Parts: sequence; structure tokens; C-alpha cells
Amino acid sequence: MATTDRAEAYACWLQYKKIEDVKWLDNYASYCLNIGVVGTSEIIHSALDELSLAFHSMFGKKPTVTPHVDSETSIIIGTYQDMIEEEFALETDVFQSLNDEGYILRTVNHLEKNCVLLVGKTDKGVLYATHHLLRLIQARESLHQLDIVEYPKNQIRMLNHWDNMDGSVERGYSGNSIFYENNKFTTNLERIKDYARLLSAVGVNSISINNVNVWEKETYLITRKLLQDVTSIADIFRAYGIRLFLSINFASPMELGDLSTADPLDNNVKSWWKDKVKEIYQYIPDFGGFIVKADSEHRPGPFSYGRDHADGANMLGEALEPFGGVVVWRCFVYNCMQDWRDRSTDRARAAYDHFKPLDGKFKDNVILQVKNGPMDFQVREPVSPMLGAMEKTNQIIEFQIAQEYLGQQKDLAFLIPMWKEVLDFDTYAKGEGSTVKKIVDGSLYEYTYSGIAAVSNIGDDINWTGNTLAQANLFGYGRLTWNPNLSSEEIAKEWVQVTFGNDPIVVETISTMLLDSREIYENYTTPLGIGWMVNPNHHYGPNVDGYEYSRWGTYHFADRDGIGVDRTIETGTGYAGQYFSPNKEMYNSLADCPDELLLFFHHVPYTHRLKSGETVIQHYYNTHFKGVEQVEDLRKKWSLLEGKIDEYRFHNVKERLHMQLENAIEWRDQVNTYFYRKSGIPDEKNRRIF
Amino acid sequence: MATTDRAEAYACWLQYKKIEDVKWLDNYASYCLNIGVVGTSEIIHSALDELSLAFHSMFGKKPTVTPHVDSETSIIIGTYQDMIEEEFALETDVFQSLNDEGYILRTVNHLEKNCVLLVGKTDKGVLYATHHLLRLIQARESLHQLDIVEYPKNQIRMLNHWDNMDGSVERGYSGNSIFYENNKFTTNLERIKDYARLLSAVGVNSISINNVNVWEKETYLITRKLLQDVTSIADIFRAYGIRLFLSINFASPMELGDLSTADPLDNNVKSWWKDKVKEIYQYIPDFGGFIVKADSEHRPGPFSYGRDHADGANMLGEALEPFGGVVVWRCFVYNCMQDWRDRSTDRARAAYDHFKPLDGKFKDNVILQVKNGPMDFQVREPVSPMLGAMEKTNQIIEFQIAQEYLGQQKDLAFLIPMWKEVLDFDTYAKGEGSTVKKIVDGSLYEYTYSGIAAVSNIGDDINWTGNTLAQANLFGYGRLTWNPNLSSEEIAKEWVQVTFGNDPIVVETISTMLLDSREIYENYTTPLGIGWMVNPNHHYGPNVDGYEYSRWGTYHFADRDGIGVDRTIETGTGYAGQYFSPNKEMYNSLADCPDELLLFFHHVPYTHRLKSGETVIQHYYNTHFKGVEQVEDLRKKWSLLEGKIDEYRFHNVKERLHMQLENAIEWRDQVNTYFYRKSGIPDEKNRRIF
Repeated sequence: MATTDRAEAYACWLQYKKIEDVKWLDNYASYCLNIGVVGTSEIIHSALDELSLAFHSMFGKKPTVTPHVDSETSIIIGTYQDMIEEEFALETDVFQSLNDEGYILRTVNHLEKNCVLLVGKTDKGVLYATHHLLRLIQARESLHQLDIVEYPKNQIRMLNHWDNMDGSVERGYSGNSIFYENNKFTTNLERIKDYARLLSAVGVNSISINNVNVWEKETYLITRKLLQDVTSIADIFRAYGIRLFLSINFASPMELGDLSTADPLDNNVKSWWKDKVKEIYQYIPDFGGFIVKADSEHRPGPFSYGRDHADGANMLGEALEPFGGVVVWRCFVYNCMQDWRDRSTDRARAAYDHFKPLDGKFKDNVILQVKNGPMDFQVREPVSPMLGAMEKTNQIIEFQIAQEYLGQQKDLAFLIPMWKEVLDFDTYAKGEGSTVKKIVDGSLYEYTYSGIAAVSNIGDDINWTGNTLAQANLFGYGRLTWNPNLSSEEIAKEWVQVTFGNDPIVVETISTMLLDSREIYENYTTPLGIGWMVNPNHHYGPNVDGYEYSRWGTYHFADRDGIGVDRTIETGTGYAGQYFSPNKEMYNSLADCPDELLLFFHHVPYTHRLKSGETVIQHYYNTHFKGVEQVEDLRKKWSLLEGKIDEYRFHNVKERLHMQLENAIEWRDQVNTYFYRKSGIPDEKNRRIF
Repeated sequence: MATTDRAEAYACWLQYKKIEDVKWLDNYASYCLNIGVVGTSEIIHSALDELSLAFHSMFGKKPTVTPHVDSETSIIIGTYQDMIEEEFALETDVFQSLNDEGYILRTVNHLEKNCVLLVGKTDKGVLYATHHLLRLIQARESLHQLDIVEYPKNQIRMLNHWDNMDGSVERGYSGNSIFYENNKFTTNLERIKDYARLLSAVGVNSISINNVNVWEKETYLITRKLLQDVTSIADIFRAYGIRLFLSINFASPMELGDLSTADPLDNNVKSWWKDKVKEIYQYIPDFGGFIVKADSEHRPGPFSYGRDHADGANMLGEALEPFGGVVVWRCFVYNCMQDWRDRSTDRARAAYDHFKPLDGKFKDNVILQVKNGPMDFQVREPVSPMLGAMEKTNQIIEFQIAQEYLGQQKDLAFLIPMWKEVLDFDTYAKGEGSTVKKIVDGSLYEYTYSGIAAVSNIGDDINWTGNTLAQANLFGYGRLTWNPNLSSEEIAKEWVQVTFGNDPIVVETISTMLLDSREIYENYTTPLGIGWMVNPNHHYGPNVDGYEYSRWGTYHFADRDGIGVDRTIETGTGYAGQYFSPNKEMYNSLADCPDELLLFFHHVPYTHRLKSGETVIQHYYNTHFKGVEQVEDLRKKWSLLEGKIDEYRFHNVKERLHMQLENAIEWRDQVNTYFYRKSGIPDEKNRRIF
């Protein structure tokens, strides 16, 4: 296998393949070989580096870069502040309407020559505009008539790494951490820089670099002994417009040996954190702040001291406030020691029950981070009722790019359509049109801070994501977070083009595979919203009763007659009542509840008829047989691309699809057998069930 | 807690508590203070050490030991060979009828004085007689009229340690290994010596000191670098009449880097093993031989080379033969990659199917080691049909003292009654009376080598066995192996007396607890012979479907109508046909199959009526409710002993019983709920099911 193949796997969406087509070469070369820069900064330097690298690679020639604009200039680069408005016909009102990361990208006639004008509201905008231009070129768009005004719709666009200092990654499916090995920081800073390039190319502007479960070693990240290393990482990301955050251990004052309590209302604790934050900012002046998983799954938190989440978060917020830092406080709080016999407790209710009463009690630099669904990143969940419920509290939504419950980057699952469903969901929090995207972009309630975070799916595998096609999720996450109005189709197509080139068969085939994949995964696993049924702990592969008698609050209650969780107001856990009307009534009603979430909200007989006319049990059989057929079809589609894409990536995906087929068959047979044995109802089509 | 308490936990059945009762002191002291020894050896030295220690501890005075017999002598000790027959009235025919480990223990009048005469056929007999005497004293038996002739009924009485050099113990529930830590041999040889004392006291004469799964580090045990350490351990055990064995890696010639094959028919491989064995015997002249787990659960073996088990075992046997060593070849061979969909394969059949065709092909110093049941140490299994099937092949039976599937030394399970059932089982191999005990004592088929082996239950916990009451299983294993005709009641009583003293309430209470415990465990777990239903991997606690869709061949096939595995000849896997008549017909017949094994042999409806008149489902409900009540009763019984036994051991058992209750409740509720949900049949007594 050629080395270049591996280089392509590594390069992700920054391929910059040599352009062979003379027509396009002419189009682009007329613009790309003379860069004139107005003003400078570290980030502009990164943008110029990227342009030089990309142009050299695509056109075979390095562009000249001059610190001024003259008659030779074909790309004009700078910030709005540094440009002379009149010279470049910049409209004040356009720039005033942009946020700091916005930009224009425009074809202008300057000194009697067609030029590409690339102006950022700030230097970050310059960097984003640069990547926009490079995407256009790779998608073979003409540069003759550009007139683009862009800015990110979300303020915070964050990645959370669940990396541990021993090099492991919690829920990591792509090798080990790129940040740590053997309880030390990596020495491979070049890879960190490449990661920063990849992220900036899709607009990510915030990153936390350690697991939200902060174990012993990682507790020390905020101490002198490790802050120098953290600073080196922060420096790399800063040059790409990305602010660094750390997950912290709420019990740090105790675990670092300084105090005998971590009580957030204790004055010594408050002072300790103030001093600590001050120290951190001496190292990292633009430090983003803390991610906190507190009182969740046995992590320490304010509950130990009879305090609430607001007490805990505000104490940290106070310490960060003078420096412009924020506290990102996770709402993944529930009873993880539930007795399966106890039907009165409902894990789905937990976040709302815990946090709703605290609305208005949090400081302005505290942000609550809420998972998209009430459970835990299942293939299909309703939108968390927390979203929209907290009028007076900053919110950030949390997605999981790592495919913990969606095939672990063995199986294909393109997550953009799922995230879009969430973002487009109308919560009715302030009447019709109160979509999730308006909540997380801060506009519905005018939050000071808001945005989107997600658990990263990368590791030190050569292709970053295990399955090469899983790169699309990281790419798409960034693009969607920048602009939630992009369609899944647009994002898929864009990714394939920058990743595999413009062969229409390749673009069409892979796009289709991506766009179908989540439904396929749902078909052979847990349709109708029931979720779980996975092997405990590692969460790959089927195990229908795997969590049924456990303490995790994740049950399906299947018996010989029926299945599902009654979460209605009248006879169930009342969870449906956490939604605004009319969602509340819709979910609460057996007749109105969408089939895809039926078993999340209702316990029904196997013979219950879905809106399609199928019974629940027949739907289960049908989807499971169909899911396997669909995976076989994915394999066929992929096999047709042999020779059209490089061997390394071709074989990587081919192997993964083979694993996926085995997994799908196991899911099909176990689920069908389980429910056939339990219900005694045969498949109408007499297919093989064991 | 007093240090002495911990010392008592550690001392197990070698308590030697001070005798306070003047009557008994007089009885014993008249015999025990003057020891006259005829002849000497290392083992006799061990016996004298034990007597000195014990007498000093019990009587407060050290006995005098003289190397001859005179008028002061009150205990006369020696081997038959060294004694003058006439002087001590030894009957030649009695001694000729004893095997080498036999002895007499007799009160005689010698030089006009009552003496205890303790004569071993060899020095091993002396050591065993010594322990016999000490047990009698601790049980407050009079020494005035002893007339005991004893010898072990089984030739090989072995313990297998599943210890790894990293210090872990596979299926260990009592801390870490006493032999290894951090990939080195322990430096605590004193503890090894104490272990040898404990084992010799109950007649164990063989020990293998490393896991049958021989991993990388342990493969090196037979190399120069580690043989010196092995020798040190062998030296300790030798002084207590115990021969040392090693588990070996069949692929050693390759894994140690010498050859490119481990083919047993390859001449280089044969030479390699011959040289290796010669080297081992240079270090350990009485080395016992090899334990081999080959072609089982992914361990290497002859199958890789198209050879069979006889080829593999005989090759090793040839190498060991010149030195009197043996090969113990395990029969735990089955397809551990079974597809759960495949109903034609039956793990229970595997050992017989693999080995029966090879009968007569094994060398005379090869012994096949067969687990007591065909599956894997479940609470109730039929006796393995291998036992009796191999007329021309030496056999040793394998028990498991470690409670892998029987509560892991948290739950109480006294295993002697279970082992007795196995040993008393009539195989009809040579007509009526062909009991398993006659097979393993070598008498039925006149085996050259035979006996009993068992997986040890000890570790470096202060009390050796985690649960102090689990000491009874190691003690009882030795005693039963010495004499399979001892009753469970005798063994239980003897153990309580030497361990906790002679208070009749203590003896009665603990004996009852022990004797009831296996049935109690069976009640709340898996009655009617179905087995499994445990959490995968670690095997503690309930998980009804835990192995149902796995590759291990361990299924219950429960559906909404019924449960059980059809192993009949006509409609099932044919496993029942592996037995001799009339067992074959009994198991094969739904009417005749004993209820306790019903579901092992038959798939029946939940409504099938047992011989008791109960339906299967009602029996399941009843036993599970009853099992929990019985555990509550065990706790009550134990609590009455507070103050009657030392605090440390009292609390140790109390804590374990608490864990057992929690476990039993979990079993009860999960099993009842699972089957209620599946069958829809309510409990006749309307007890709480979830």
C-alpha cells in the first residue's frame, strides 16, 4: 500500500489534491498565486500557511505573499479593521451585522484586475474565509463571481475530548489519545497542529482536552507541574482560533492535598479556586474555562456538602469571571444506582427534575451543557425537555460524535441527519418556532453564552476516526454547528468532495451511503425509540436484556405480551409532562405519539398497530431483516468504488463494512429470536428466526 | 480486633488451642511429653516439628524428643521399616496390606507403660498419623485405647492452582497468589510452608503451582531462569510429602524461541521435551510431571498439527517416563466458538466425543483429567459420562474447590455433599456397583495412575479462603479424597471441631449451616439442573440470558412456553446416549429422569409436573422464595454464635452472609421476574414478582 494512501487517510478534508484539469487550473491560478496581506496576526499567519500549503499542493507552485496590496495581487487578505473601506468597497453595515468570526469572500475588481477579496471581521474570520475558499476550489466552484457573507450561527462550537493521561480514550474507537501517552503529554505536537488545522477548517473554536471523568492524574492538570504542558497545547490551538478548556475535578482542593473540604460555600474553597484560576490565566491568558461533571456517576460535587448545582457552578464562575472564563456545567445527573424493581424512578426525568428548579440561580458565566436526549446518545431519543426549559440559564447542547451506541466506528452511521432533527425540533418554549437551534444559538432567550459541544471521535489511528467514513461526522459536526441551516445532503456532498474528490459516481455513492446509514443502523438495532439492548459496559453488539436488570435506569420492560416504557402523565412516570404543549400532549397520547418514539413513551402490546398498519412485532421483524439487507447493499455500493479511491481508504471502509454486516446479523438474530421466544408470534413472512 | 483473632483465621484447622480442661490435660499429657523416634527423614522431621508445636501450644510444655525408645517414652514414632516388629507387636500382614502412605495409630503397652505407637508404612505415613493424632486430641477423643489402621483410598490427591505470575489467581476469590507477585516468586516462603502443613494435615500429596492457562511469563517456569525458584517451592512441599507439578504450555518449544513447530510427532520437538524434562529433574528429582490444557479455549495443542490428543500426551509421556513423571492431560475440550443458533452441537457431549475414540491409545504414564460434570462446575450437573468410559486409560477426576459458580466464597456452599454424590454415583460401567469412586481409586479398571484433583480455593487473604467457612471445603476435599467413605456429616463435624473447638452449640450450628448450604444455593439460583444464568465473565450474580446468545455452548432455550435442553437420543442432542444402561434410559426418559436434572436433559413446558406434583414454574418460584428465606435463616443461626467464636472470624462470616443475602435476593427477583414475564403464569401464592 502506498505511503500516499496513508497520507490521504490522515489528511481528511485537507487533501489539496493536484488539479489536473487545465480549465480549472486556469480559473484558479489567475487568482491564487499572489497574495497581498493587510495587517498581521498569529491567526492570519496560520491562514497564510494554509493557503501556501494548499496552493502549492493543488497548483504545483508556491504563491508569493506580500505584506501589501499592489497591481500583482490576486488575493487580498486582511481584517475589516485593517482594510481601507473605500478602497475595497466594504459596506459598514454588512460588517456591523457580522459577529467577530464572520467574513466576506468576494470577487472584486481592484486596480483593474479581478481579485478575490477575503476580509474577516477579525483575524478568525480571515482564517475561516481561507478555508471557505479552499473548499470552493476543491469542490471545483468558479471564483469569478464570488459574493459571500458568512458568519457562524453559534457562538461556542466546542469539542470535548474524553482523553485520559494514560493514553486511553473513554468511548474512543480510533486508537489512543493524540494528547497523552503513559501519563505524560505527547511529544508529537505536529499532530496536534494538524488537528487544529482540521478543526479550524470546519469552524470549531473551543476544545476541552481531558475526560469529563477527571481521575487522579488528570486532577493535576491545573497544577504547576502540568500547566506548562497545557500551555504548549493551548498555544497551538490559539493560532487556529481555538480556545482551550479543561475538565476539572470538583474535589480538587481536597485531592490536591490543600484543603479538607470542597464545599463550594466554604471561604477557603472559594479562595482556593480563585487563586487556582489566577494561576491558570498566568499561563494561558485566553483560557476558556472549566467543564464540570459533578454529582454524576460517582464523581464528586456539591451534593456531598448539602449544596446544589448552582452553589457549585457559581463558586467556580466567580473565580473565572475576572478573566472572562466560563463554567460549562454538565446536566448528565441521574441516579445511577437505581433498583430495577423501582418503576417510580425514571432516568429520563432526571436532568429536568434536578435543574429546572434552579433556573435563574446561575451566574451569567455559567453554561449548562445538556445532552441532546434525556437518556444517553441512543440511536433515537426525543429531544431533552431541558432544551427550552431554562429561560434564565445559558445552555449549550451536547452531541456525541464518537459512535458509542451507534456502531463504534465499525458500523457506518452518519450523524448529521440525527443532529438536524434535534436542532430543527420545535420545543414551543415561547410558542411555535421555538426550535432547538434558536435556543442554542442564544437567540430565543438572549443567552450571554450558548452553543454546541460534542464528544470527539478522534484518536491516534492514522485516519483519526477508525472508520474513514466517520471523518464525515467530525467534518459535518463543525459545518452544522457553524450553520444549522445547511442540509444533510449539502454537508455530505461537501465532505465527499473535499475528502475523495469530484468523481460524480464517488460523490453520489458515498453521499447516499452516508445519508441512509443512520436509519439502517436503527433498523437492525432498536427501532421505535426503545434504545439500549446493548452489551453492558462496552456497548457494542446486541444484548436484549443486557441492561434490563441493572442499576442504570435503562429498561424496556418486555414481557410475553408487550414492550415499552410508560412515560405518560396518567399511568406512567410523567416524563411526557416535562414538555411544552403541544409536544406534551403529542407524546402523552398513544394515538399521536410518532411511531419512531412509540416505545420511549408507551408500553404497548406486540400486536399494537403502528401508523403504517404493521404490528409492533412485525415491524421489529421487518426492520431487522431489512437492516441486514441494507448493510449488504452498503457493501455492494462500496465495492463498486474499487479503483476510484485509494487502496488504503477503500480497504479500511471495506473491512469496517464487513464488521458491520456481522454485527447487523447478530443484532437481527438475537432481537428476532428474543422477541419470538417471548411473544410466540411468528413472522408473517416465515423468515428464519432461531 | 485482637491479633490472635487473625492468627486463628490464618491457622485454619491447625489451631492447637490450649487445653484448659484438667481431665483432658491429664489424659493427653500422660502420652504427649516424651517422644521417642526410630529412624529419621526430612518428612519425619516435619512430623516432629508439628507435634512439638502442637503439644507446646495445647499443653503449655514442649515435649522432649529422643532418637530412641526408652522407659520414659510415651509416643513411639517411626516407619515400619525402621521398627523392630516383635518389640512393637507389628503384624506383617497389616503392613503389607497398606499402601506407602498408610499407618497404624495404636495404644500399646511398652516397657510396662501405656504408649501411643505411631508407625507409618513409610515416612509419609508417619506424617499423616501425626495429623490424625492431633485431630483426635483436638476433637477430645481419648487416647487410651487407640487401634487405628489407615491408608488413603486414592493414589493421587492433588491441588491445581490457577495462579499467574503477576499475582492474580484465575477464579480466585481470596486475594492474590501466595506463590507469585509482580511476575516473581514470593519471598514469603514461611507462608508456603504453612500451606504445606495445612495440606499434609488433610492428606494432599500433589500440587501444581501455576494456572492451566499458561501465559507468556509462566511458559518460562520450565527454564533455567526460573527453575531455581521452582525448586525452592518443591523443597518445601517435599518435606510435607507433596510432589510438585507444573502446568506447561504445549507450544513451549516455539514460544521459548527454540523451534519453529510444536508438532508432537516432530523429532526435534520430541528431543526438545526430552532435554527439557531431563533438565527439570536435575533440579527437582521427584518432580511430579506436567498438567496440560491443550486445544481448549484457544490454548495451543496437537490439533494445530493435525495430531490428536494421544499424540500430544504420549510425546510428553515419553519424555517423563524415565524419571517416573506423569502427564495429566485435561479433557476440558469443547468448541468455545459455538454459534448459539446451532442446536446440533452440544458442549456436554464434547469430552466424550473427543476422547472416547482414543481409549487404549495413551501411554501408561498419561492420565486424563476429567471434570466431574460435562459442562463446568455448575451447582448441579450429571456425572461426566467420561467417568467409566475409558477402560484402558488412566483417569483422574477434577473438582473445583474455588466456588466459581457457587457464590465465589461470598455465598456459603459446602461442597462435600456434592462431591460425594459424584463419587457415589453408579456408572454401571462394569455392571452395578461401578461407582465413580471405584474408577478414580483405580480399582475398577486397575489403572496404573488415578485419583482426584481439584482447583484450589486459597489466596493470600489472612484466612486463606475469603470466607472463613470456605476453609471447610479445602479441609473436606483432603479428607474425602483420603477416604471417600467418610460422610459429609463426619467431615463437617471434624472440621468445626479442629477449627472452632468443641462447644456443642458451635459444632451443631455450623455443621447444619454447612450441610444445608449447597441446596440453599441451588434453590435461589438454578434448580432442576439448568445451570448458568450467571453474569458473563466473572460468573457472580444472576443474568438469565447472560450466556443465552453467546458462543460458549451454555443455553437454557427458555421461551414463552417452556425451558430446558433436549439431550435425549430421539429428539435431542443424543448426549443421554453417552451413559451406560440403565443410566442412559433413565436420563433419556422424561418420566424417569430425576427432577434435579430434568432441565439438563429435557425441554419441558413451564406447566410440566415434577414428581413432587409442583409445576416447573411454580417450583422455580417456590425454590427462589425459599432460598432467600433460608439465607435469612443462615444469618440468624450465625448471629447466635456471637461471643462463642472469636470476633475476627465471626465478623468475616457475618459480612459474607450479608453479601449472600443481597445476592440471593437479586437471584430470586431476577429469575422470578424473568420467568413470570416470559411465561405469564402467576405465582400460586401471589408473592411479589416484579
